[in-house]
This record gives sequence, structure tokens and C-alpha cells, in this order.
Amino acid sequence: MKLWDKGISIDKKIEQFTVGNDREIDIHIAKYDVIASRAHAKMLQKIGIISAEELIDLLGGLKTLEKQIENGTFVIDEQFEDVHSKIEFELTKMLGEVGKKIHTARSRNDQVLVACHLYYKDNLAEIKTKTKTLFDTLLAQADNYKEKLLPGYTHLQVAMPSSFGLWFSAYAELMIDDVYILNAAIKTVDQNPLGSAAGYGSSFPIDRTLTTKEMQFSTLKYNVVAAQMGRGKNERTIAVALGSLANTLSRFAMDVCLYMSQNFNFISFPDELTTGSSIMPHKKNPDVFELIRGKCNKIQALQTEMILITNNLPSGYHRDFQLIKENMIAAFEELKSILDIFNYSIQQIIVKDIDLNDDKYKYLFTVDNINTLVVDGMSFREAYQKIGGEVQNGTYKPDTSKKHTHEGSIHNLCLDKIAAKFPQ
Amino acid sequence: MKLWDKGISIDKKIEQFTVGNDREIDIHIAKYDVIASRAHAKMLQKIGIISAEELIDLLGGLKTLEKQIENGTFVIDEQFEDVHSKIEFELTKMLGEVGKKIHTARSRNDQVLVACHLYYKDNLAEIKTKTKTLFDTLLAQADNYKEKLLPGYTHLQVAMPSSFGLWFSAYAELMIDDVYILNAAIKTVDQNPLGSAAGYGSSFPIDRTLTTKEMQFSTLKYNVVAAQMGRGKNERTIAVALGSLANTLSRFAMDVCLYMSQNFNFISFPDELTTGSSIMPHKKNPDVFELIRGKCNKIQALQTEMILITNNLPSGYHRDFQLIKENMIAAFEELKSILDIFNYSIQQIIVKDIDLNDDKYKYLFTVDNINTLVVDGMSFREAYQKIGGEVQNGTYKPDTSKKHTHEGSIHNLCLDKIAAKFPQ
Amino acid sequence: MKLWDKGISIDKKIEQFTVGNDREIDIHIAKYDVIASRAHAKMLQKIGIISAEELIDLLGGLKTLEKQIENGTFVIDEQFEDVHSKIEFELTKMLGEVGKKIHTARSRNDQVLVACHLYYKDNLAEIKTKTKTLFDTLLAQADNYKEKLLPGYTHLQVAMPSSFGLWFSAYAELMIDDVYILNAAIKTVDQNPLGSAAGYGSSFPIDRTLTTKEMQFSTLKYNVVAAQMGRGKNERTIAVALGSLANTLSRFAMDVCLYMSQNFNFISFPDELTTGSSIMPHKKNPDVFELIRGKCNKIQALQTEMILITNNLPSGYHRDFQLIKENMIAAFEELKSILDIFNYSIQQIIVKDIDLNDDKYKYLFTVDNINTLVVDGMSFREAYQKIGGEVQNGTYKPDTSKKHTHEGSIHNLCLDKIAAKFPQ
Amino acid sequence: MKLWDKGISIDKKIEQFTVGNDREIDIHIAKYDVIASRAHAKMLQKIGIISAEELIDLLGGLKTLEKQIENGTFVIDEQFEDVHSKIEFELTKMLGEVGKKIHTARSRNDQVLVACHLYYKDNLAEIKTKTKTLFDTLLAQADNYKEKLLPGYTHLQVAMPSSFGLWFSAYAELMIDDVYILNAAIKTVDQNPLGSAAGYGSSFPIDRTLTTKEMQFSTLKYNVVAAQMGRGKNERTIAVALGSLANTLSRFAMDVCLYMSQNFNFISFPDELTTGSSIMPHKKNPDVFELIRGKCNKIQALQTEMILITNNLPSGYHRDFQLIKENMIAAFEELKSILDIFNYSIQQIIVKDIDLNDDKYKYLFTVDNINTLVVDGMSFREAYQKIGGEVQNGTYKPDTSKKHTHEGSIHNLCLDKIAAKFPQ
Repeated sequence: MKLWDKGISIDKKIEQFTVGNDREIDIHIAKYDVIASRAHAKMLQKIGIISAEELIDLLGGLKTLEKQIENGTFVIDEQFEDVHSKIEFELTKMLGEVGKKIHTARSRNDQVLVACHLYYKDNLAEIKTKTKTLFDTLLAQADNYKEKLLPGYTHLQVAMPSSFGLWFSAYAELMIDDVYILNAAIKTVDQNPLGSAAGYGSSFPIDRTLTTKEMQFSTLKYNVVAAQMGRGKNERTIAVALGSLANTLSRFAMDVCLYMSQNFNFISFPDELTTGSSIMPHKKNPDVFELIRGKCNKIQALQTEMILITNNLPSGYHRDFQLIKENMIAAFEELKSILDIFNYSIQQIIVKDIDLNDDKYKYLFTVDNINTLVVDGMSFREAYQKIGGEVQNGTYKPDTSKKHTHEGSIHNLCLDKIAAKFPQ
Repeated sequence: MKLWDKGISIDKKIEQFTVGNDREIDIHIAKYDVIASRAHAKMLQKIGIISAEELIDLLGGLKTLEKQIENGTFVIDEQFEDVHSKIEFELTKMLGEVGKKIHTARSRNDQVLVACHLYYKDNLAEIKTKTKTLFDTLLAQADNYKEKLLPGYTHLQVAMPSSFGLWFSAYAELMIDDVYILNAAIKTVDQNPLGSAAGYGSSFPIDRTLTTKEMQFSTLKYNVVAAQMGRGKNERTIAVALGSLANTLSRFAMDVCLYMSQNFNFISFPDELTTGSSIMPHKKNPDVFELIRGKCNKIQALQTEMILITNNLPSGYHRDFQLIKENMIAAFEELKSILDIFNYSIQQIIVKDIDLNDDKYKYLFTVDNINTLVVDGMSFREAYQKIGGEVQNGTYKPDTSKKHTHEGSIHNLCLDKIAAKFPQ
Repeated sequence: MKLWDKGISIDKKIEQFTVGNDREIDIHIAKYDVIASRAHAKMLQKIGIISAEELIDLLGGLKTLEKQIENGTFVIDEQFEDVHSKIEFELTKMLGEVGKKIHTARSRNDQVLVACHLYYKDNLAEIKTKTKTLFDTLLAQADNYKEKLLPGYTHLQVAMPSSFGLWFSAYAELMIDDVYILNAAIKTVDQNPLGSAAGYGSSFPIDRTLTTKEMQFSTLKYNVVAAQMGRGKNERTIAVALGSLANTLSRFAMDVCLYMSQNFNFISFPDELTTGSSIMPHKKNPDVFELIRGKCNKIQALQTEMILITNNLPSGYHRDFQLIKENMIAAFEELKSILDIFNYSIQQIIVKDIDLNDDKYKYLFTVDNINTLVVDGMSFREAYQKIGGEVQNGTYKPDTSKKHTHEGSIHNLCLDKIAAKFPQ
Repeated sequence: MKLWDKGISIDKKIEQFTVGNDREIDIHIAKYDVIASRAHAKMLQKIGIISAEELIDLLGGLKTLEKQIENGTFVIDEQFEDVHSKIEFELTKMLGEVGKKIHTARSRNDQVLVACHLYYKDNLAEIKTKTKTLFDTLLAQADNYKEKLLPGYTHLQVAMPSSFGLWFSAYAELMIDDVYILNAAIKTVDQNPLGSAAGYGSSFPIDRTLTTKEMQFSTLKYNVVAAQMGRGKNERTIAVALGSLANTLSRFAMDVCLYMSQNFNFISFPDELTTGSSIMPHKKNPDVFELIRGKCNKIQALQTEMILITNNLPSGYHRDFQLIKENMIAAFEELKSILDIFNYSIQQIIVKDIDLNDDKYKYLFTVDNINTLVVDGMSFREAYQKIGGEVQNGTYKPDTSKKHTHEGSIHNLCLDKIAAKFPQ
């Protein structure tokens, strides 16, 4: 059941190599092929390729398949190369000749491309929603723990006072930058590529504006060559967007793992969120956050794969593009679960009381103390020399009373302003 | 003249290693340190740290330095670690004690960070402008050559008719996707980080809203920890944006190199734009486009560097961040020259007449011919079998008269619609 | 059945997230856990932890499991976290208490690590064998087609005469460089890490020299911290080695795709090795080679994943390392199938006769002609000007009779010398 | 003074773009062009292209240039495109016509390629020597500090006893794995490519075996197409080798930065090796090690650049290859200085006394205690439950007396065996 079968028996070994695991991956895009097929059918009727009755039959057939997909009863059997052959076969089995007509004026590339655009658009929106949920959680935690001080480090050296409020909301605000790229990725795929056929358009009088509206794309990817060249390039952009978010989460997870170390001991988690050791009975390991970090780092590597597969290829379709879907779709599934787990776990964090009078933290306040001297009239350099001198000869006594007043500082977190910045 | 000098002589070898080539790189951001210093000085006066007279002196001193920078007479001598020490030294030399006061309530990290934001914002805007120029050129060339047919390839096999109009405008429309990411990068750096100090804010009562307005940032990066964590993360986003554009240009250059091969012979360039060989007198090599391709591929690699330098580092400043500027700034300079050269060269392209009646191209029209049969009532599969049969037994005769009518197709390029899509 | 279970019910969601798809992946290393367990058991008996009878029981149990693995009847059920828990469970079910004793003096990390070393060593050897097979095929093809001329290109411009003999044997000789890295990877994993336990060794008086011999490792990874730090670092090296070979194959595949284009038409393949198009009946697409290219490019991207997962992590085990196996093992499976398919396909290549008298190729011989003048006494620059002049004014006539005599040239391929270079 | 000048004035802008900064980079390979030119001249005399007198003249001219290069008086002026044109020009200026004859039977590509092979071979050997020096230092430090205990971490949680002896020698032993890849890289470039000309060999009767011996290459890269395809591929391998070593050093530097944190406080360095802060007088920042980490991470990114520049390019020379040298040569210079600084600094490390009786470290010995029970006859699981129970109810008392006896463990470092493993 290969569309391009010319009656020649294809070597089995080769077939396995070329089909790969498309059948498993394609389950994720089955729903979107139905959506695109429905729009395409309506358009075919509009331009007179199929009749109104044929359209009704096709829509009925597609509805049946859509339900199977929702129920989980839709399976792409071994005899089919991919989901697109399968759907066409089922329609033909149900409806006869008209089932074949839906392939008119489109090619398989066309189908894969539009289904991917729809899958990506949907899933990027879902990632954005989950990001917003985590963002809200982080701002809530920042508010909950805004009074809890934390040593701030530079060069991994104790530097200046920080707080859990600052820490939680820092990652929230960084996620806003990630959403800028997510939005760019959404715009990239929110363009209708259907009608590009094999990458050079169709000589049928198709109406792409109609399918654009039917599928609720914001605009068309007009140029058919550009539409096809989106393969790989779209995924590069998406990989970059997912990778940007992964970068933020990975660094957050690194902080969590470090702060859970006995040498920091700033935070903890309930036993349900930690794991033990097969030989060390006292361990409470932050496996969840280590796996978040590792999985996020894998996602960050994805863009290199997307670039390498497509780089330096001349324009026009190449079969290499088939390989792009697999890890891309896996990354979406992974990142959605990471966002869920992160949001779930971070709400259960146990923030500890940190004794900032401990010797190792006592210099945290030197800068505040210098600044007090400056506000009282001393030059910065002199104040710096004075406190520095006290530190060197051991006479330094911290004054922890100084309040930070400016926007985004420890005592003025501006959480509402950060909340308001989250992009549409 | 190192700010952190504690009277201890630092080993020369180590110094060289730590300073690196900051002096050369910093020339690019000197202008932006002046802009930020001016805003900071105004704010210091507003909050009462310096007097109105001192402000006037500082603004005068900064104006003098700004002119030197513009004239190219500003040099960062060996005795200075970076541009920031140099500027502070010059102000102090000109103005005495007040020159030192400008360092009040900010740290070097703060200065580097805000200067980079300003540099990036300016240069991203310049990249966007140059991208728009090239975009316009490509659309103009698409219009100029819209009647010139070109074989369209899939799998590098002759597939269906294309045209130079489609080819030029494909790359134009792809650049729109690149601008979505450029805009995301612009938003990322269009946030004022000044006031984050060493990454934990300042106990001085600074007014960050005022400096935001003075430097014409759209908003604040409120959270001071987030502001500092932007180091590396901002550059990652920018590298991704430059890399996306580089990806489009690199693939365009690949097409150019291929189409200039004697085996395609679709295009040529004047002698001024090609180079010869030291041992082959007949060669006209597309070196300019090969170098565009190679340089763009280098730029595409940059994001991996940005990720690797910062990945898995806990929050807070690390000296590693110093290394981020160098290749980032080099990439901006390179990409600006690539855009200029590309725009200059592509206007001089010589589009050849391609004989589509040549044997190797005669199957270009099979799909059109199938479609005609379908529009006349035959089922697609039958029509496909019929034309396929003619191809196999050698009786196929192309009919090249078919017009493509749909949006974005060979005979309906929608150039005005593509032009209208270019993002603000 | 989690080894670290402390009687606390672990949240299901978290469990799924942490176990991932280890069960499926671990099937590939089951065999190697048995080998390592056998060696470990023998050693435990030697040092008196278990008795001779217990050893016999354990070896019997392991033999049973080994047969199940060979038969494909060994399954890691849902109740087990990984293959190591499963094997221990089965041994205990079969043998009672002694089944548990095999865990003495080792930890799960230890087991994973040594099983991976064994898996990698075996599979790298298999890759090397398959590489040698392809190498031999390419040299044979070089010999078969050594008389067949091919235009040689520089800058994708027709440059100088080449031949299929040169082309085939070029890729063979490049593979020798890949084997240098493969051998480095083999050396890296051919060191026994067993006994490193959780990364800090064991206080049991284990005998690592004995297990080294039992498992046929060439040497020990002595330092236990180094042994554990091999996780991720070994995989980085292996990814680099597989990627190097993939790089050679990918570039070869690019040549194949290009040379199959109608515009080159240098080679072809039987129908069984090409695919058609759903809408273009005349297409013979090089899908197999496009997929080889794409899959090889994916493999080339793998090293970035390996680096990103482990980079900047402090020494000691981190759970992130669990994620390294998955794509690494997939890459081995993929590359083995690529080598098979490549070797199978390249033997069926159809080498065409290329008419070098065609106008576009006639300048191929200019360099030879220049050289003849030089050998006859003219200076190179004069000869270059003379032939260059003829080319420019259209009077150039190629003389194709020149024989290249030096080592590795078109008429002196040195295939035997290249064959002799293949590293042990 | 461009070799391929055909009397046509090349646009200045284009020239700048194409020449790039080759003049500055080429200084590094000038010496190697002289070596290759000397070998080539001797060979030309042997095959009768130049006379014995001409050879003497050429060797004299080359000697003069070699001295200039050694003295640092050799400069590549603006009028020259690269070092190769410059050297040919100087020879001609000194010797007249014979100076031009040295270009006979080779092309510029040939010259660049062989000079790079020689540069790489020399510099890889230098890297290996410096690696050996650091390796020896680390083993010496391991011996110096073998009695000093250190907490060992897994998951960044206190896990089991380690020692400075283990820590130092772990990195030494890991460097052995890096040398395996360095050796692979050395083998790759230790093959003579001279004679490949533009990538298709020469019709002159050149003697490549002779030049191979003259330049002391171990063998020939026989196939001329393979020789040219080494461009980019060689650099990929070298980047991978440098990156592997950089990976080890970067992780070591991460440990150093972490252990210097007040929260660990395991080590320190003299003031000369740390830096202060412009606003925090108490800071002693590990900038040297942060820069080592960052610079090593940059070097790790290099392989992606090498792959991206060359990936998917068909065989034959492309101008893109010109771009490969720049960052490659910079990476060599950087890594050599990193190795020097690392070796210099690590000798001055101050190892602190760590109080393992501190509460946070008291569980370090649980595994040892479990093992003692097992050796005394208890089953592992029971012993694990027993000690685990004590930990949970607070009755656990560490017994720190256990000695680790096995190879590579804390009390049996096997430093001599590790030393003996360092590859030739």
C-alpha cells in the first residue's frame, strides 16, 4: 500500500530502512491530518472537483476516523507506510472511489507539512499555557517567601543578600523572554502551507484562502517554495523556542540540586519527591530535578540536530526531512511533562531558615555597609577601603538593617509588574 | 588600573589570561557605556548622590569621550582592563573626584550588562533594516524575473516547473520568519538591566524607571537576579536569531553555487563577483557565495557556544560570562557585511534562458498534464497511471500551456501580499 | 521493586518521569549485565563473600537468564525499574537468599557502568567490522571502475579529470581516519570500571584485577572517581567516533544524490533501490541515500547532546547520566543498519558513461595541457597565460592523452597501499 | 598580487569580504609553508623540473624567509592575499624566474592543506606534551595529598569518603582517555597530502613518497580526492580531540570553583591567583578557573562549527574551507595557554583540613559500616536496613576506621599504574 508503487517489488530490507518508525510517530499527527483533509475536501467541493454529496460522505468518513483517533482505537497497521496512506485507505474502504478523490490537488509532502504546522501550533499553545501556569506558581512562591533571606553568590562566592522572593521571581521573569521566542515560533507555524503540493504548487484551481480560514491559520505561507522550505526551518525555530524554555528550567533545576546539598541546605522536598540509594541509607537525592535538568539539556541539543539535517541542502524537498518529526514530537511530549512535574514539585518545596549570622555569610552585608557610608557622605572608594580594611583585619561587624528600595530589589520585588509583562 | 586591586601584585601571566582581548572588543561597546553612564549620572543627581554642578561636569566629560569614540581617537590603552575602567579613569583625569562618583550605585557587571543590552538593541535594529533592504531587493528581482521558468527539483530530481520569480520570493518570504525571531531577540534586550549591580541590586535609593526612560528602553528587567542571569541567555537568543537569518542566506547561497555549476548553468555573475584559479584558467568560481555560505554556517554554530559557556551554571554571576561578548560581536559585524554583500551581489545576477525542451527537463510537466485529465473528469489514479505509462513507454509529450492560478503559485506570486507580511 | 524503597509510597507521576523508558532500552544491555554479574560472582567467591556452592548456583541462574535473553524471551516487566533489579529479582526467585548476595560490593551505578562499557566495546567492534566490509567493497568498486572517467569539481565548477576509481577509493581512505577515532573510543571503554561502586569504591576487599580478566578488559580504569566520571565522557567519545564515520557516509550520500540528478546523470540504481512519487510518475528518487545522509547527520548531532547533558556538572554521579544511554544505543542500532544498507546498495550502483567531449566538460583538461607545455620547457605562468588565452578566445582544444603517474592519482590509485593502511 | 588575477579589477568591497583576516592567521602557518616548499623544491629537482643550481637558490631563499619568520620580522603586507602569495613573491624578488618555478605542480589549495597538516601535527604534539606535564603534576599532587580526606558526593549529596588523592588522580586518569583521541588526531594529520593539487592530483610526474620523507610524515594520504576532503574533516577530528581535553579541564575547573565556595571551603589559592570585586571588599574570586572553564567550553563548541561549515557539501574543494583555519588556530593557542595556566595554578593550591566529624558529613561512613556488618556475616539487605534504621532514628555512629584495599580505591590509589598507562 505504498502510493508510489509501480508494480516493482521493493526490497524488504530497504523498505524497513525507509519507513523507519513513521507509523508510531504519525499517531501524534493523525488528528491533524483529519482536520486538514476536512478543509481540503470543503475546498475541493467549492472549486467543483467533488460534488456536495461527495463532500458530505467525506466529512462523515473523516468524523468516524476522528472519533477513532480520540478513542485511541485508530491504529496504523504494518501494511501502511504512514498515517496519510492509512486515512486515504480507510476513506476508500468506507466510501469507495470518492475516498481516493481527496488526494486530488495535494501530495503527501503537502499533507505531512500542513499536519505538522497544525500539530506544532496546537502544542506550542499548550506549552505556552503550561509555562503561564508555572510562571504564576513561581510568582506566588516569590510572594510566599519574600521575607526569607538567602545568600546571593557571585563566582559561587558569598556575595550579597538575596531572598527566596528574588530567586523564585527571577526564574518567572526569565520565562517571559522564553515566551517571546515561543511566540515567534507560533507565528512561524501559524501560516497555511497547504497547496504547496510537492513544493511547486498545483495546476488545479485551488483556493488556499478558503483552507486557511477553515483551519484557522492567521495567514498563508504564500510562496509554495517557501512553504516547503519551512520543513526543517520551522523545526529549527521550534527547537530553539523549546530549548530556550528548557534552558531556564535546567538552570533552575541546577540551583535546586545545589541548594539541596548538605553544604547549602537551603531547601528540601517531601520524601515523595526524592529518592534513596541502593547502598547509602541516608540519601535523599533530588532525582526529579536532576532528570529535569538532564531532559532539558537534551532538548537544548535538539536544535543542532535540526540544523545538521537540513544545512547546506539545496532548495526543494529531500527525503531527509522525514527524520525531523521524530525527536521534535518527542521533545514536545517531554517538555509538557517537565512543565507539569516542575509546577507540581515546586509547590511542595520546603524553604529552610538560613542562619545568615553564620561565619561564612557574615560578609554578605559589606556592600550595604559601604553604601550607608557613601549615603552619609563618604566617597565610594574611601568607604570601600574602610570596610575592606575591617574585613582584612577582622573587625568587620555586619549591619543588616538596610532596606533596598529600588524596582526589582530584595524589598521591592515588583511581582505585579512582572506578572503584567507576560506576553499575550 | 584594576578596580579590584588590593595592593597585591598579580602575576603577569595570569593577568594576560584573565584580561584576554577585552580591550579590542570593548571598542564596540564604548559608545554604549557613555550612553548608560549619562543616564546613570542624571539619575544620581535626581536622587541626591551628586549635585547639579557635578552632573553638568560629568555630562561634559562624557560628551568629550563620546566625540573621541565617534572620531576613532578613543583608544583603550594596555594599562586598562576594559572600557569601563578607561572611561572612569578619563573622567577622573578631566574632572577630579566627581569622575569617581559615577561608579556609585553600580558595579562593573552592571555596566557591562547595560552596555551590551544597548549594543545588541542597536545592532539588532541595524540587522533588521538590512534584512528589509535585502527582502525588498529579492521581491524586486522576483518581479523582474517572474516570467523566467526554472526547473523545480525534489530529491535533486527534476520535478515540476518553477520560476525565478518563485525562487527569489521564496527566500524573501522565509526571511519573514527570521524577523519573527529577530523581533523576539529585540524584545529580550529592550529591557533595562541597569541597577542590578552585581546581580542582587543596590541598597542605594536608585530610580530605575528614570534610567529606563533616559536610555529609551521599553521596560525594565525588574528582578535583579533575572537581569544578571540574562548574561549568556540574551546572547543565546540573539545567536539563535542571527543564526536563523544565516540559515536562510546560507541555503540561498547553496542554490546559487549549484545553479552556477556548468551542469545547471541557470545563472551567472559579472567577472567582478567571481574569482579564478591559480592553475585552471577557465574557472569562474562563486567564491563570494561560498564565503557567504561558510560564514553563515559559522554564525549558525554560535548558539552552541553560547549554550555551552553558560549551561548548568548555578544562578549568579560567573567570570565565564566575560567570554560571551567576543564571538557575539564578531558575528554582528560579519552578518552586517554579509547582508550588504548579498544585497549588492544579487542585484547583479545574470539570469540565463533555460531550455525546458531539453530532454532532461521534459517530464517537468507531467503533473500538470495529469491534472488537466483530472479536471476533464478522469480520476487522479487513472490519470496518474496514464501519464506514467506514457513516460515508461516513451510516448509522453509535455503540454506546457497550463497556468497555475492559486495564491503563491508560479503565475500568481502574491508579491504584494508577501511584502505586506514583513513584520514591524 | 525499587532498590531504594524506604517504605514510602512514591507519587506515580514522579515515578513515570524518573523511570522513563529504561525498561525498553535496557534490553540491549541485559546480556552485558549477565556477563558482569558472572565475573562479579566469581570474584566474590574468590574473596570469600560467597561459597563455592553459592557460586555454582549463581552461575547456573545466570546461564538460565542468558538463554532467555538470547531467545528473546527475557522481558523487563513494569514492576521493575531497570534490567538490574529484574536480574537480581529473578536470581532470588530461582535461588533464594544467595540471589541477593550478588549485589554485595557493588551498586547499581556500578552495574550500569560496567554493562555499558561491555555493550559499547562489543558494538564498537561490530561497527569496525562493518566499516571494514564497506571499505573493502569500496576498494573493489574503485578497481572495477578505475577506467571510468568522471569530471572533477572545485567550487562545484567543472575543474579537472577525475574517475570513479578515485571517487570510490577516496571514501575508503577517509574511512581509515574514522577508524583511528573508533579505535580511540574502543580503548576508552576497554577499561574495567567495575568496583567503582557509587563512584568512591568499596570497603569490601574486592579483586578488580580478577574481574578485569574475567570480562576480558585490557586494563582497569583504576581510579574509582575517574571510572564514574566516565559516564557521559565515554559516550561523548563514542558519539564523536560514530559521528566521524557518519560524516564520511553522509558526504558520500550527498555525492550520490547529486550525481543521480538529471543534471549530472553520472550514476543510477536499480528500481528496487529508488522510490517514486505520489504525483510525478517519472521520478526515481534516491530516498535510500537521502535517508542515509539524514540519519548520519542526526548521528553527528549526538555529541552535542552528550556534551550538554554532562557539561559543567561537578564530579560525582548525577541522575542526569541515566538519560545518556537512550540515544546512544539508538545511534549504534541506526549506524549498524546504515552500514549494511550502504554496503548492499553501493554494490548495485550503475555507473554511466559520461561524455567528456560535451561542451561543459571540455575545459577539464586545461591543467593537463598547461603542464605538458611546462614539461616541454615553458614557464608555468606563460603556459597558464597561453591556455587561458585560448579558453577566452575560444580556440582551446583539449588533449586528453596525458597520464597521471604519481601516487594516489587517477592512473595510479595505490589501492593495495590504501588497503594496507586500514588500522588493526 | 592575486594569483588568479585575469586583468579584471575586482570590486574592493568584495575583495575585503573574500580575503578576510587570512593575513593575520597565516602568520601561524608561514613556517610550515617554508618547510613544505623546501620539500617540494627538492622533489622538483629530483624529477628534473628544476636544476640543482636552481634548487640551491631556492633553498637559500627559503632559509632567509625562515629566519625572518623566526625573528618575527616576516610580515604579510596588505598587497598579498595570503602567506603563500607572499612567499612566492619574496622568492621571485630574491631569485628572479626560479622563484616562480616553485609553484610548478602544486596549487594554492595544496599549499594550504600541507601547511595545515604540518601546523596541526606540530601543535598536537605540543598539546600532548603539555598534557603530560599536567598529568604528572596531578599525580604528584595526588601523592602529596593522599592522606587528606574529602567528602565524596553523588547527586551533590554527601555520599561516601573520598580524598584529595582520589580527586587529583581521577582527573589525571581521565586525561589518558583524552590522549587516545589526541593520538587519533595526530595519526589523521600525520599523512602527506602534498601533491593533491586542486584535489585531483597533478599530471606532472611528481614523487610524493620523496616529499613524505622530507617532511617526516608517517605515510601518504594517497588518494588525492581524499586528501582534499580532509579539509574540514581533519579539523573536525582535531576540534573533537581538543574538545575532549577541554571537557576534562572544564569539569576540573568546575570542581575547583565549587570547592572554593564558602559553603564547601575545601581549597584555596594564594591571592595572586584570585581576584577581588569592585564593590565587595571580602571577595576572593576564582576567576582563573572560571575562565579556564569558560574557555574550555568555547573549545568544546568548536566541533559544531567545523561540522556545520562542511556538512552536506559535495566532494571537491569549496571556498568555505578558508574559514576553518581561523578559530581552529585560535583554539590551539588558547588551549596551550590553558594547559600552562592550569599546571601553574594547580601546584599552588591550598588544600584545607576538612572536619569530617561535622554533622553534615557524618553519614559519609554508612556504607563502610554496612559493609563491615556484611563481612561479619550479615546479609547486605539486613545490614542496609539496620544502618538505615539507625540513621532514621538518630542513633547512627560512624566508624571511620575502615580501610579500602582494592585497586584504585581511597587507600590504594595505584598512581604508578595510572602513570604507566599514559599512551605513547
